[in-house]
Amino acid sequence: MPFRSEAEFVRWLGRHWPVRGRGLDLGIGDDAALLRAPAGRDLVVTTDLSIEDVHFRLDLHPPRAIGHRALARALSDLAAMGSKPRFALLSLALSGNLMRSWIAAFYDGLGTLARRFGVTLIGGDTAVADGAATIDTIAIGEVERGRALLRSGARPGDRVYVTGRLGLSALALELLRGSARPSTWVARSRGKAGIGRDEKQQALAAHLYPEPRCSVGVALARQGLASAAIDVSDGFATDLARLCESSGCGAVVREDQLPIPSGGLTRNALELGLYGGEDYELIFTASASRAARMPGSVGGASVREVGRITAAHRLTLVRSDGREVPLETRGYDHFRKLRASARH
Amino acid sequence: MPFRSEAEFVRWLGRHWPVRGRGLDLGIGDDAALLRAPAGRDLVVTTDLSIEDVHFRLDLHPPRAIGHRALARALSDLAAMGSKPRFALLSLALSGNLMRSWIAAFYDGLGTLARRFGVTLIGGDTAVADGAATIDTIAIGEVERGRALLRSGARPGDRVYVTGRLGLSALALELLRGSARPSTWVARSRGKAGIGRDEKQQALAAHLYPEPRCSVGVALARQGLASAAIDVSDGFATDLARLCESSGCGAVVREDQLPIPSGGLTRNALELGLYGGEDYELIFTASASRAARMPGSVGGASVREVGRITAAHRLTLVRSDGREVPLETRGYDHFRKLRASARH
Repeated sequence: MPFRSEAEFVRWLGRHWPVRGRGLDLGIGDDAALLRAPAGRDLVVTTDLSIEDVHFRLDLHPPRAIGHRALARALSDLAAMGSKPRFALLSLALSGNLMRSWIAAFYDGLGTLARRFGVTLIGGDTAVADGAATIDTIAIGEVERGRALLRSGARPGDRVYVTGRLGLSALALELLRGSARPSTWVARSRGKAGIGRDEKQQALAAHLYPEPRCSVGVALARQGLASAAIDVSDGFATDLARLCESSGCGAVVREDQLPIPSGGLTRNALELGLYGGEDYELIFTASASRAARMPGSVGGASVREVGRITAAHRLTLVRSDGREVPLETRGYDHFRKLRASARH
Repeated sequence: MPFRSEAEFVRWLGRHWPVRGRGLDLGIGDDAALLRAPAGRDLVVTTDLSIEDVHFRLDLHPPRAIGHRALARALSDLAAMGSKPRFALLSLALSGNLMRSWIAAFYDGLGTLARRFGVTLIGGDTAVADGAATIDTIAIGEVERGRALLRSGARPGDRVYVTGRLGLSALALELLRGSARPSTWVARSRGKAGIGRDEKQQALAAHLYPEPRCSVGVALARQGLASAAIDVSDGFATDLARLCESSGCGAVVREDQLPIPSGGLTRNALELGLYGGEDYELIFTASASRAARMPGSVGGASVREVGRITAAHRLTLVRSDGREVPLETRGYDHFRKLRASARH
């Protein structure tokens, strides 16, 4: 680590990331942080790993994006609970070979997102270790007691919604893998057939700097609009299956309603939309009466009705031609793959 | 990972570790956990990395001990704040080659310690990744508002105390490094000269299954006995220096008062006691008036007065022969080493 002492590192950290905030009795620099939970509110706690060559690649992802994405993953979980982000802790195992400029850009990516969402850094652990860079981001939010959005609240007849667009992050990853660096990719990709330049740039932004849907989650929770919610981290089909499993139900999804890329690439657009991971959009459900007053956008994000919750414990896809086919949930075999990941 | 699905893994987890508890509105299985903070109490949050070949070695440390130590590190931070442990989250990046029996023993080590301290598992993230096994343990405790023990409260004239014994963990590590496995080591070491068999077994226990001093911390906080506290994770001298730096003071330590090993090994006993890491004992300070009524043991641990806080910003060691020498703080060069670690 290119720092002479722990004290120097902690001072340096404080310039990149807010380290003081409301409800914080004691921040970084002691054995632990002291938090005050506001009366009538629950604290919401989540943790997410970001591992080199599993969740990011040093040759594809700029350090600023790696920092942004590491925090965005955790904030997206808070969004899915309908909670407002407040604090974060960061555990970091980095190779001693990384340059100070890389570390600065990494923290800048984290810090910029943190500042925008009012997240105070309250602690962490940093180790220099050979091997894959490993980042664990712990995020803490707050939500009015009894208002949190759970995975388990969906009931048969509820409508299924999704925010924003699906599959853009996976689309960008496919494109990035075909070139050396994002900056060169943007230049090289101009004029390629099959997908518009605007969509490519949107995809790149969605992949490198995903926007956690915190305002959506908070608005849904406050207004009591949603019966259940989950964020799309492992792909729409997989995460919808998780919501259904928790709620003890199934769902029917209409292919022609899915907000998917315009297509024309190596894999087709439906595949990307259903199975592409790291969208960090929200899937949520609402009762028929709530659905009747569902606005077209919530908390600054477009909201699309894509299907319906069923009593039958299975997922069904209604193709554009009206045929009904089982909707596969490929994410469930993660534990059989080498590079699996399971949040619990 | 030798599990067919995330759901199977989470069910399996629940058999090894309590997943329900007081103050928990929602535990593992959703996007995040929901905690209720008791009125008038602060939540105390800490996170600690345990990395293969930095904090443990697969050829030296049994999986049960690796699990125990990963949680003990974090509980020791809570102890140093005077807080009672309540919850934990666990992020785990493991190689796909590890056997299910290894993982079971690892969780059993964690779960046994968790049960004993009333710690509920509320979340985490698990990834299968090549390279060094990496564990991040997040622990959450509670403390009466205004009663937390900080590093910054020591004042000139305060007495310096340490719990239990110093240097045993480092002693055990030296012995372990000379043999293949702990089990064979216990047998082989019998009759070696220089250190008693009992002390070896105590050292081995202190290293593999350290006891976080939570009862001590809670008792000190409740009774208002301590002016400052820190746990000994990087060695007595280094951690005392951190306490002094936070408090803006220095200290004089008496060599003949330090509870150190009886000696006779490769490094001398004073070195082990001053610079050996991972003791997980507490250093704390108390004003002269509190010191006058300090019992010989607190919360089940022996408590030894080893020195005094000074206004001068330096650490001094009074040798057994009365000579005063500067007390080096070697831990401060961690950031210049390859395998450094900095809690913040």
